[in-house]
Amino acid sequence: MTMPSPSADPRSSLRPLALTLGDPAGIGGEIIARAFLRDPPATVGCFVAGDQAHLERALAVVLRRQGRRGAAAGPSDPSGVAGAGKRLLRVIPIGSPAEAAGVDPGGIPVLQVGPRHDPERLVAWGQVQAAAGRIAGEAVVWAARAALRGDIAGLVTAPLHKKALAAAGFPFPGHTELLQAEAAAHLQRPVSGVPVRMMLASDALRTVLVSIHVSLRQAIEAVTFDNVLQTLRITHQALTPVLGRPPRLAVAGLNPHAGEGGLFGREEIEIIAPAVHAARSEGIDADGPHPPDTVFMRARATRQRPGAFDAVIAMYHDQGLIPVKYLGLDRGVNVTLGLPLVRTSPDHGTAFDLAGTGRADPASLLAAIRAARQLAAPAPH
Amino acid sequence: MTMPSPSADPRSSLRPLALTLGDPAGIGGEIIARAFLRDPPATVGCFVAGDQAHLERALAVVLRRQGRRGAAAGPSDPSGVAGAGKRLLRVIPIGSPAEAAGVDPGGIPVLQVGPRHDPERLVAWGQVQAAAGRIAGEAVVWAARAALRGDIAGLVTAPLHKKALAAAGFPFPGHTELLQAEAAAHLQRPVSGVPVRMMLASDALRTVLVSIHVSLRQAIEAVTFDNVLQTLRITHQALTPVLGRPPRLAVAGLNPHAGEGGLFGREEIEIIAPAVHAARSEGIDADGPHPPDTVFMRARATRQRPGAFDAVIAMYHDQGLIPVKYLGLDRGVNVTLGLPLVRTSPDHGTAFDLAGTGRADPASLLAAIRAARQLAAPAPH
Repeated sequence: MTMPSPSADPRSSLRPLALTLGDPAGIGGEIIARAFLRDPPATVGCFVAGDQAHLERALAVVLRRQGRRGAAAGPSDPSGVAGAGKRLLRVIPIGSPAEAAGVDPGGIPVLQVGPRHDPERLVAWGQVQAAAGRIAGEAVVWAARAALRGDIAGLVTAPLHKKALAAAGFPFPGHTELLQAEAAAHLQRPVSGVPVRMMLASDALRTVLVSIHVSLRQAIEAVTFDNVLQTLRITHQALTPVLGRPPRLAVAGLNPHAGEGGLFGREEIEIIAPAVHAARSEGIDADGPHPPDTVFMRARATRQRPGAFDAVIAMYHDQGLIPVKYLGLDRGVNVTLGLPLVRTSPDHGTAFDLAGTGRADPASLLAAIRAARQLAAPAPH
Repeated sequence: MTMPSPSADPRSSLRPLALTLGDPAGIGGEIIARAFLRDPPATVGCFVAGDQAHLERALAVVLRRQGRRGAAAGPSDPSGVAGAGKRLLRVIPIGSPAEAAGVDPGGIPVLQVGPRHDPERLVAWGQVQAAAGRIAGEAVVWAARAALRGDIAGLVTAPLHKKALAAAGFPFPGHTELLQAEAAAHLQRPVSGVPVRMMLASDALRTVLVSIHVSLRQAIEAVTFDNVLQTLRITHQALTPVLGRPPRLAVAGLNPHAGEGGLFGREEIEIIAPAVHAARSEGIDADGPHPPDTVFMRARATRQRPGAFDAVIAMYHDQGLIPVKYLGLDRGVNVTLGLPLVRTSPDHGTAFDLAGTGRADPASLLAAIRAARQLAAPAPH
């Protein structure tokens, strides 16, 4: 991995970053277009992997809405959106990731994955369709392989719809499992040999989840010594290059008051504390188990002070996601840790009800792009 | 319950509010003294139920520290604490709650509960002691009975230490169970006939918990139709007079994504949704079950907008307490709902490590006093 030199032109020093289009019946194309409009410096070196015709439709929707808002708001529109809408943003086809760097800021580079769709026969907005699932899935498979080959710095994945993906015949419930399978094939290991964890990050808090999409009863069963220790190892390994030092990791308890010395559950004593101890003996800066109701507050960074920890290991989905989402959804980033590639995504879904309106907010996608850059270009030591 | 007329002198219109001293080895007396110093209007009509000698020791600690800070900071101390410290705050013994209204703002009225302690033989700071537990427990019993008789508007309870309480022979793990037993005796019902729920409230969010101090496994078992419906009834009944209208109640799910249609657990389908339905048929404005990771964000009130709900019913301790505490502990208030009396408390413990330093923050106690006033003097309809 090449380290960008701070004084170099970012366009020449950054490896290309793929933004996968996501389900073209959803808001993926629109948030990508709005990200390029709103924040040209952040999108330098980014290109879209997907279908050109669907991206062009999304851009047209966004520009039409911006034009209307610009006309209504007049030149003094404080949001600056009207002014941005006046720029002549266009979709620019490229033949390889390396060409992305040569595209001017007025262009959204797109690398066609699969056959280009007829602009007269695009998928309908806001519906579950196999054709849409196929476009979404093929772009992710292509980008995963490009990242594993080292052709791109990583992937930022716009949302796909799991039912559309299934209708297109992809045997994965979502991005994570698809990427895990691609990575396992690349590494010639079984899928179980590529353990991954989901990290949710905002400006204020990072949290890494021991389990995700299972019932709370099953999540309790998943709090095992191996799973907690593996979560600590994966998080330590992923964040050390980003921070330029070993991360300070807090481990939440499972039970109220972290069990209050065994009064309200014994998982802290029998499982979590031993896993923390084992991690520390490996040189991981792990601390806990801490009472869940205050550890996220303590880890929260504010303008006045850094958090007491760099990340909190959460024992189940909502324990970690409630605090990350509490202050608002627009800045949350989803990061898959443990893969031999960089993958981030915005912290929202396809929003079929918003698709085609040009109103979807690109803030979380932009945060995901920045997070992917951080993960791909580690802090200098 | 008499309604205060808005134009009347607050001292004559407010019924007295008891602040129970809490464990005298902890920070109770200090936060009470600092609350009287910091916010005289908020403490009008309040009196301390406990031991005069221990309160005087706590006040002396606070005044000594304020004096040092005042001398160090000089007259321009922007916190205003130095100026406040110069006021001649004294402890004023009273013989009945009604006398509290006649005490000048320079006095902290104290109603002696039990024998007055010899100032030369006070309990040590920061230790579990039966003598301290006795002082704490007797004050709460006295105040509970005074509230049940209607002599006082309610109780704001400074923290006690459960081990000290047990050492003094009180057969209750904490305030809530003690108050529940007193209320049951008053109403001539079994304790099970006085169901209570804990509400945590901050400026931004109210949350009411289906269960509290049990393991997460037991908390899942406590998510029953009866418990969820009872929580909704208790919350509806308690908040309707406070708001002057029926509260809008969101019910959180138990599982990630509220079970995602049964994929990640069936409690939402089989238990929570039927309980919400039953509550609605009783005229309760209940809504849900909602995905736990976003419902607290939606209910959060900000300066820009009110929350989408007046309170969230949380299925277990940490689900509700993580978001309430996430923005900081200093404003959280604990309210016991379901009792035939008003009881609030600060959202922290005895803080034995801080006791005797004069540094404990009275913000949460002041918030608890304001909340008790709101609950005791409902909003006009």
